[in-house]
Amino acid sequence: MSDNDIKKSYEKSAGTMRGDNTTFGTKLTNEHSNDPVTHTDIHNRINVDYDKIRKSPSMEEVHKWQREHIKKDDQTKDGYPMNVIIDPAMREMYQVIHDAGMTNVFDRFSQQQPIQCKFCIEGLSCQLCANGPCRINDKVPRGTCGVDAHTMVARNFMYRHVTIGTSANIFHCHQAARTLKAAGEHPQSGLRLRDPEKLKKYAEMAGLDVRQPLEKLAVDFAQWVMDDIHSPYHIESKTVEAFAPTKRKELWRTLGLFPGGGYSEVAYAQTRCMTNFTSDPVEFLLNSVRLGVANEYQGLFLLDIIQEILMGTQEIAVKKQNMGLLKEGMINIVTNGHMPLLAHVAIDLASTEEWQQRAKAAGADGIQILGHVCEGQQLINYEGTHNQTAYGGQEGEWLSQEYLLATGVVDMFMFDYNCTVPTMPLYAKRFGTKLLGTHPVIRLQGTESLDFIPEKMKEQAEKALDMAIDSFKQRKAESRKTYIPPHTSDCMVGFSTESIRKALGGSFDPLIQQIANGNIRGIATIVGCTTARYGQGGSNIFRITKGLIEKNILVLSGGCTSSVMEYTGLTNPEAAEECGEGLKAVCRQLGIPPVLTYGACVDIGKMTQTAKELADALKIDTNLLPLVIGAPEYLEQKAVADACTAVALGWLVHVAPVPSITGSDVVVKTLTETTETLGLGKVVVELDAEKTIQIYVDHIEKKRKELGLN
Amino acid sequence: MSDNDIKKSYEKSAGTMRGDNTTFGTKLTNEHSNDPVTHTDIHNRINVDYDKIRKSPSMEEVHKWQREHIKKDDQTKDGYPMNVIIDPAMREMYQVIHDAGMTNVFDRFSQQQPIQCKFCIEGLSCQLCANGPCRINDKVPRGTCGVDAHTMVARNFMYRHVTIGTSANIFHCHQAARTLKAAGEHPQSGLRLRDPEKLKKYAEMAGLDVRQPLEKLAVDFAQWVMDDIHSPYHIESKTVEAFAPTKRKELWRTLGLFPGGGYSEVAYAQTRCMTNFTSDPVEFLLNSVRLGVANEYQGLFLLDIIQEILMGTQEIAVKKQNMGLLKEGMINIVTNGHMPLLAHVAIDLASTEEWQQRAKAAGADGIQILGHVCEGQQLINYEGTHNQTAYGGQEGEWLSQEYLLATGVVDMFMFDYNCTVPTMPLYAKRFGTKLLGTHPVIRLQGTESLDFIPEKMKEQAEKALDMAIDSFKQRKAESRKTYIPPHTSDCMVGFSTESIRKALGGSFDPLIQQIANGNIRGIATIVGCTTARYGQGGSNIFRITKGLIEKNILVLSGGCTSSVMEYTGLTNPEAAEECGEGLKAVCRQLGIPPVLTYGACVDIGKMTQTAKELADALKIDTNLLPLVIGAPEYLEQKAVADACTAVALGWLVHVAPVPSITGSDVVVKTLTETTETLGLGKVVVELDAEKTIQIYVDHIEKKRKELGLN
Repeated sequence: MSDNDIKKSYEKSAGTMRGDNTTFGTKLTNEHSNDPVTHTDIHNRINVDYDKIRKSPSMEEVHKWQREHIKKDDQTKDGYPMNVIIDPAMREMYQVIHDAGMTNVFDRFSQQQPIQCKFCIEGLSCQLCANGPCRINDKVPRGTCGVDAHTMVARNFMYRHVTIGTSANIFHCHQAARTLKAAGEHPQSGLRLRDPEKLKKYAEMAGLDVRQPLEKLAVDFAQWVMDDIHSPYHIESKTVEAFAPTKRKELWRTLGLFPGGGYSEVAYAQTRCMTNFTSDPVEFLLNSVRLGVANEYQGLFLLDIIQEILMGTQEIAVKKQNMGLLKEGMINIVTNGHMPLLAHVAIDLASTEEWQQRAKAAGADGIQILGHVCEGQQLINYEGTHNQTAYGGQEGEWLSQEYLLATGVVDMFMFDYNCTVPTMPLYAKRFGTKLLGTHPVIRLQGTESLDFIPEKMKEQAEKALDMAIDSFKQRKAESRKTYIPPHTSDCMVGFSTESIRKALGGSFDPLIQQIANGNIRGIATIVGCTTARYGQGGSNIFRITKGLIEKNILVLSGGCTSSVMEYTGLTNPEAAEECGEGLKAVCRQLGIPPVLTYGACVDIGKMTQTAKELADALKIDTNLLPLVIGAPEYLEQKAVADACTAVALGWLVHVAPVPSITGSDVVVKTLTETTETLGLGKVVVELDAEKTIQIYVDHIEKKRKELGLN
Repeated sequence: MSDNDIKKSYEKSAGTMRGDNTTFGTKLTNEHSNDPVTHTDIHNRINVDYDKIRKSPSMEEVHKWQREHIKKDDQTKDGYPMNVIIDPAMREMYQVIHDAGMTNVFDRFSQQQPIQCKFCIEGLSCQLCANGPCRINDKVPRGTCGVDAHTMVARNFMYRHVTIGTSANIFHCHQAARTLKAAGEHPQSGLRLRDPEKLKKYAEMAGLDVRQPLEKLAVDFAQWVMDDIHSPYHIESKTVEAFAPTKRKELWRTLGLFPGGGYSEVAYAQTRCMTNFTSDPVEFLLNSVRLGVANEYQGLFLLDIIQEILMGTQEIAVKKQNMGLLKEGMINIVTNGHMPLLAHVAIDLASTEEWQQRAKAAGADGIQILGHVCEGQQLINYEGTHNQTAYGGQEGEWLSQEYLLATGVVDMFMFDYNCTVPTMPLYAKRFGTKLLGTHPVIRLQGTESLDFIPEKMKEQAEKALDMAIDSFKQRKAESRKTYIPPHTSDCMVGFSTESIRKALGGSFDPLIQQIANGNIRGIATIVGCTTARYGQGGSNIFRITKGLIEKNILVLSGGCTSSVMEYTGLTNPEAAEECGEGLKAVCRQLGIPPVLTYGACVDIGKMTQTAKELADALKIDTNLLPLVIGAPEYLEQKAVADACTAVALGWLVHVAPVPSITGSDVVVKTLTETTETLGLGKVVVELDAEKTIQIYVDHIEKKRKELGLN
């Protein structure tokens, strides 16, 4: 197939969708009346027409098409969604699913547009009390209680987004700490202490006695973390004291932003959101920043540390991504979420000869476990996983999970945390996948869930593997039709504070030198999710990143953005060719790509750590670094909490789409201007990729100037 | 003034409003364009025309009018709001404020009606993620993520209402415990241990050593409470273990509803509400009931116990209520909220000759502190307050706070918790009131707030009193126009588990006997808020309660419902005349009213305790009691959490208005039917007062039958 054929084939799919909008809309409506939940065909397995799928292009051809396509500026409503989906596997599977008339994320987004509410978009709708719901507009400037636009918007922001996201990250850290404790107390539980040096380092910073036996130290450190999470809001957090940059801590104290225990902070913030409680909008916003501090030091940062102690610190390596890693003859387990603790034990077990033999006895070529979403981004990075033979690679971003199951070869989909979409039970039934929750905190309709018992992870992992084998047998017994899009990307992964420093010869000095001499102008983190929105779906991430590396800005990625970087080839060292001269030289010299994937969205905790170490090396406060935090396709509440963390640390945070705060000029001004005057960071909202790139460049150049760099 | 004149006068006000709806609507719109926030007249103090107020009727006349008016069934949109406001003081002041064109709660409710959103009313709108906001209808049955109506409604229910309300009640308990600890450690901090026996009783139940010095015991008990609140969600709560009914605990364990530490439970629940996290609607509802258990034993119940230890247990007494208690020549401080800790210290101080002299030196006749909303309902009940000479009485319900300030004689409005409406700063500026927050958890725009330092309450109370004196001087210096509606009610207050048992001669047996012999058919708690809705505003509470006592059902009240009972005369022993024969005889015999006010909404914790003691005396589980929990005008999130508590305890819970759950038949069915089949309680929604009364009667008769009572 020539380049031109590929281009045509890809153009055709975009073109088709663009041409027949009416049919498209009608079809969607009909489709939904055929929603599998309510119809008898729910058990008719795989009636999609895989044969229609055109011959798949090679990844080289795909990368070429992606780059040409993205130049076109046509990622709007017209031609949606094929004009925003740039993952080759997802492009194929979307068409299959859409043609089959199954509900799926992109089609649902289209369906929602005609009924979207302007009040809700702007944050001007309140549903808290029984006098409401209330909405605010020019003619009706207050809710029944008397709340004005500013308070309503700010309160909505905090209780709908920030407290939920902060809770989730801290809860995650809490579960990781429970597991660390279990690993220390019950060596046979399944997880091991794979990075004892890391444990010692951070336990020492916590002020613990590191001369005691390692297992005991693990227990003590875990308990210290949990105790801090559970401490009262009015007593300063020990984890923040131990790990946050000194100058930041002073500022937070001055501003009343030094948090106590995270759970107590969440309850405090929720309390303030009661009807007829706090009604000062600025209070809600500053409270959100305070939650951002807890979100980092009792959440992201420590959960990363603990997971690495248990699963091995990142190690730079070349690995593979995308649906092409699925194997028709293998038992394919996909593990999804953000907390790959049980998954790691399962991969350990599946890597044994015993379990491979069991798989073979069931008629399979073997058993492999692949990661999806952030769980996949974590697994692909850990040194621990790199040594596990049953590890199958990284699948994709959250948008692709419905399409992934439609391949028909996913025998088990294990999930432990967000992001698992509510329609997975429908897909699982239709395509014969065994769904298994691995923590009671996440339950899907009609879906089995294992309790989270860190002391018995091995036992639970065995149970899961047995279920997967049964599911495979069923697939074979039914001779189900399957289709695996043949795409896989080679990507260099495993970047982190430690692995980068190691690669640089033990110190950040060479990196600082490259920043100082201007080869690298600065650093942008492109983190967070992907959305189904017009102009997004991965496209916005790709366009912005391409533009940044051309401007010699080194990019760190984490979350579903890493998937995008992987399937667009930007985490391949070959992508050095696409950089500006300075960055290209650095990448060439070190043999690294211009986008360094740190892994999951929760690995933002590692990026802040890298930034802190850079700032320490330069003897400056974190807000002076030539650094921008970008979430060009942020989706959910953890991303909002993370943005609050970045504001607390003094950074410029770019977000798109537009958050639901535009109903209040006070809120917008506070978050986009005032916070910076207090020594905090600020938020910038920009949807246009070119303008976004310029904002990053300008900010980085401004910071360079402040540091006296040319 | 004859009865007939009064009737006419009251009818006129309702009639006028009913006749000119068009003018009414137009006026409201114009009024809002004159919103004081945005106009220069904000500092023009008191330009309202008090002279227009017609001669006020006596309370006897008012009670007569209330009873005739409520028979009319005209509390709908037509004639609103004068057809729902039955508090005589509020009736007068509403008209003043409305005529002055100031924004106020009833007018704002009217303004909201044309723009209310049907999706939000039904719970079918989600604003959690950046792919949204999404709405669900028949043609578009899923949000972009794939969420269906059931999950959307249930998730909204939990994160918008239950987690917020639970947080608030537990936070309140936490602050009370901090204060108890401070009182034990710092005897000069202002608060004393007024009920040592209560401290010993509950400390013993907690398993603490009660032979130690009282101060030390207070510290230990406070710490025990706080430790439980801060403990992890996966370890059973010690407070629940110590204080919940045995049979309930067994059931909760079986159903997975036995909670751990409350703050951790809140974070767990919030985590589940993340986008693409839990998507099983029943899980959200059961989780809400679990939060309801924590809400009770780490919130309501213990905060009541602790506040009583510090402020004195309830004591039956006759006290006064309503705006007529304000005195033009006095320094009037109104203290608002739910946590009268600092207020209690301030009343203690103000009761000294020293402070009365200071007031006189400032030209006042003295200084008095009155309670408003639930704070007022608590203060009016405590034995401690009964001995404080500067205590001025109870003001009113939450709806009346704007109207209260419009009297012009409130020199200081202190507030510590919900319910303080966001417009209070406007009213304070306009009418010369000093606003003072007494806990950082509640902050209003441009309003001063004291830090909450329980160790320094005396110091802070002195500061507050000084501010009030200055404010009074300013009022006098400006010779401001004032008007005090002359209404006050005499009410018998101070009912609680202990005071009722004491009144009954030391045991609940006489009460049980009266229930057994059928003089009292059963008990209904009429608790919670008042709303500004059509058919409500206090009217619904009054109508239902009237109906219940006629059917020989003893009523306990708590929250703003107690205000309604007070200004309608139902807490006066004279109201015995309005009861059915059985209840009348009991009331007459004991000299009590048919409505026993337990105090604040948070005093629901005491009602559950009374119920538990009754159940214990009868040796039955709590769900077998002839008891109904009613919240006929519930407003906010704490009320929803309290409803979850009642469901956990096995009770029928009546709520109105309609909660925003009607978008899902699964959610409705689960809460109104399924939970009962599990041994839990259930919710019933009914707006019509007559039908409501019948539901209560039927349920109580059913329970009587199950107990073998005629």
